[in-house]
Amino acid sequence: MRKEMFDHEINILRDTYRRLLRRNAKINLIKLTSKTHPADLAVVFRHFQDEEQLEIFSLMKESEHTAEFLSELDDALVNELLENESYERIAAIIEKASTNDQSGILNILDDEKAKSIIELLNVEEQEEIAEIMGYPDDSAGALMNTEVFTLHESITAGEAIKTLQDQEGAEMVFYLYITDDDDRLVGIISLRALTTTSSSTTLKDIMIKNVHSIRPETDQEEVAKIVAQYNFLAVPVLDPDSKLLGIVTVDDVVDVIREEATEDFLRMAGAGKDREILLKSSWENAKTRLPWLFASWIGGIIAASLIGIFENMLENIIALAAFIPVILGMGGNIATQSSTIIVRGMATGRVNLGGEIKLILKEAQVGLILGTLYGVLLGLFARFIFSDAPENLGFVVGLSICASMIVAATVGTIIPLILRKLDIDPAVATGPFVTTSIDILGVLFYFLIAGLFLQI
Amino acid sequence: MRKEMFDHEINILRDTYRRLLRRNAKINLIKLTSKTHPADLAVVFRHFQDEEQLEIFSLMKESEHTAEFLSELDDALVNELLENESYERIAAIIEKASTNDQSGILNILDDEKAKSIIELLNVEEQEEIAEIMGYPDDSAGALMNTEVFTLHESITAGEAIKTLQDQEGAEMVFYLYITDDDDRLVGIISLRALTTTSSSTTLKDIMIKNVHSIRPETDQEEVAKIVAQYNFLAVPVLDPDSKLLGIVTVDDVVDVIREEATEDFLRMAGAGKDREILLKSSWENAKTRLPWLFASWIGGIIAASLIGIFENMLENIIALAAFIPVILGMGGNIATQSSTIIVRGMATGRVNLGGEIKLILKEAQVGLILGTLYGVLLGLFARFIFSDAPENLGFVVGLSICASMIVAATVGTIIPLILRKLDIDPAVATGPFVTTSIDILGVLFYFLIAGLFLQI
Repeated sequence: MRKEMFDHEINILRDTYRRLLRRNAKINLIKLTSKTHPADLAVVFRHFQDEEQLEIFSLMKESEHTAEFLSELDDALVNELLENESYERIAAIIEKASTNDQSGILNILDDEKAKSIIELLNVEEQEEIAEIMGYPDDSAGALMNTEVFTLHESITAGEAIKTLQDQEGAEMVFYLYITDDDDRLVGIISLRALTTTSSSTTLKDIMIKNVHSIRPETDQEEVAKIVAQYNFLAVPVLDPDSKLLGIVTVDDVVDVIREEATEDFLRMAGAGKDREILLKSSWENAKTRLPWLFASWIGGIIAASLIGIFENMLENIIALAAFIPVILGMGGNIATQSSTIIVRGMATGRVNLGGEIKLILKEAQVGLILGTLYGVLLGLFARFIFSDAPENLGFVVGLSICASMIVAATVGTIIPLILRKLDIDPAVATGPFVTTSIDILGVLFYFLIAGLFLQI
Repeated sequence: MRKEMFDHEINILRDTYRRLLRRNAKINLIKLTSKTHPADLAVVFRHFQDEEQLEIFSLMKESEHTAEFLSELDDALVNELLENESYERIAAIIEKASTNDQSGILNILDDEKAKSIIELLNVEEQEEIAEIMGYPDDSAGALMNTEVFTLHESITAGEAIKTLQDQEGAEMVFYLYITDDDDRLVGIISLRALTTTSSSTTLKDIMIKNVHSIRPETDQEEVAKIVAQYNFLAVPVLDPDSKLLGIVTVDDVVDVIREEATEDFLRMAGAGKDREILLKSSWENAKTRLPWLFASWIGGIIAASLIGIFENMLENIIALAAFIPVILGMGGNIATQSSTIIVRGMATGRVNLGGEIKLILKEAQVGLILGTLYGVLLGLFARFIFSDAPENLGFVVGLSICASMIVAATVGTIIPLILRKLDIDPAVATGPFVTTSIDILGVLFYFLIAGLFLQI
């Protein structure tokens, strides 16, 4: 129950909107929208029909609030909202956004449209946006906030506080960034240190000099790792000459961590990496998922051909066919366990380079333990339920389950390790890849074991 | 390459430690340890053998640095390190930790031991720890920091800054918490607002009154949702009388988000929810994973029994057996895609209550599109490769693939939706549960379709 508190509030908000929309109460709608947190508005928008969304959006002012709302909103919805909107209005809203939000919103639109809108902005903003949009997606450069509060190292704490009072734009100030004559970052000071020091102290004397920084090309996952590891509230982005380009703040990092987790989930299941797949049409959905199922299809054809080869054996002992699903199913599930543990272990830094062989042996051992147990259980079942089948069937089935589970646990461990060695993200489609290998290997081992132990 | 920057630094650190350990260079080891960030130390410890870990730990001082290191370290490793450590030394280290880290470390130890160690602390700390440990694991109460900087609403900004200068303990100050005569939280002030206001202003006049707060029982996932949604740096924890118990800071929330993602991954794969499973022995590993494989085993037995019923049909058309793996495999994979999309959609608030029917229909449609495509492809394969099988085999196989994929996509969507309705975390073992259902349903549909279209 408690878990649903947040959802509950969103539902109330949705119902209020619905009521006002039905009554066409424009004044109240405007009031409600301006009082609602942009992030809440972005969530509640997911509940509305297209026309409802457009109606509410048409009542919104070209304000910072609206800009923030758009930057929080799912990309697919932004696209729908802005599809038939005038370039002038979009430009007016974008003008109010922070630089990283500006490029974020513009990146959603198609290139032509984005270009036309950028041309409506003033030159200074055009340049800033061009710079940010020049960095690769998912890099620190695309994520950073360029409105940073910097101070020269030679001024005093008292002067710094005065400057701070005049500064409007720089949001989320917790660290002050200190530069030298050449504009290079030389240190940081926490706002708290600044407040609690004597006002005549020079910043140079109280600043922390050993600052952890990143480059604009740094991948956002790496940025997230650093911020999480050292509990940073913000981390400065420097160019090769140590000039401060911007800062990445922890709130954006929180979003990155959540997004990357969702992408990893989808990729592991072979369902693409589009976080908004639920908002897409069935066709687009099918298109994203189609290629990953192809692995399964190829695997299935190979398995079918293999079984075709063993047709004679099957003809004599039909009961063999009955255990194909359980042998592949148990194998597939233990392999998924192993590969999930390994892929996640890599993501959280718990799988070390150099320890691979130990890891594989350990997983094989887990496969042996579980395979023996479930093999005996299934062997007994096969022996007593399929009592008109050959004597040895129980033994063959049990041994095959055991072999299949050992192989599965091992393969489930090896595949992500190999992918990492090849510099491929191990989360990419490990799922379909692993289950397909197990389908082929499981069938092969099953019929080989049957051939060895059943007199035909 | 760039992605591995962080890992690269950890590897250098590990090698340096190894070299010093080999040379038994104690002074250098102590120096290196004190210069290394506690969080880095916790990561690099994963690379060491047990004896190496113990040796380094024995050289560490009973300092705040060591306490932080322990709170960052994997639970399993903390247990090993402290297993044979004197209670006095553990108590001396715990004394230096913040309250939430104290309870965090004590929670890892067994109850008896924790109790004995708590008795060695001073009374005030004993009480604080007892309070925090009284809250459920994974609640805001267990996560919160109790050393909060509070000020009375009637004092001035100037006085506030002076008080701040004397305050040592309260780490990570970004908001000041303002209380009334009854110690109730009435507002907050950002450090920045305090710094930039005239020093004679009363706090009451500049504080933000509408503060988002949580209860100590609030689940940590809910806390994470709130902090992420509103970009908070910290959120206050209040008791029913609005008294401030502590704050949960964003750095702890970042950890929660990462941990919950890992747990969800493992649970979906039916591999328990122990984030440190890689550090456990093969036996413990097998024990955690065993129950979830049981679902698969039951499913396998049911599938085997079903095939047993259709034995006559199989006897006449052996080629039918060859396509069992691909029908179940394609079904299993599309079902995993669907359930992953739904489970993750729920976690990120993209699956709305009330839209369930639409969602199920849409996934069924995706199943139809992909099922038709792969059904035709496989039907043609079956028709031309297994050319001595009955005419209709290709049609039966194709239709079965199609049916299996429609059913699978639908079931993969329905199962997590039902789990949520039952108030069960939909991430729990959706994986094994879904694939097992598909094994049973896939076999059933396949043989029913075969029975209809193949003259036997």
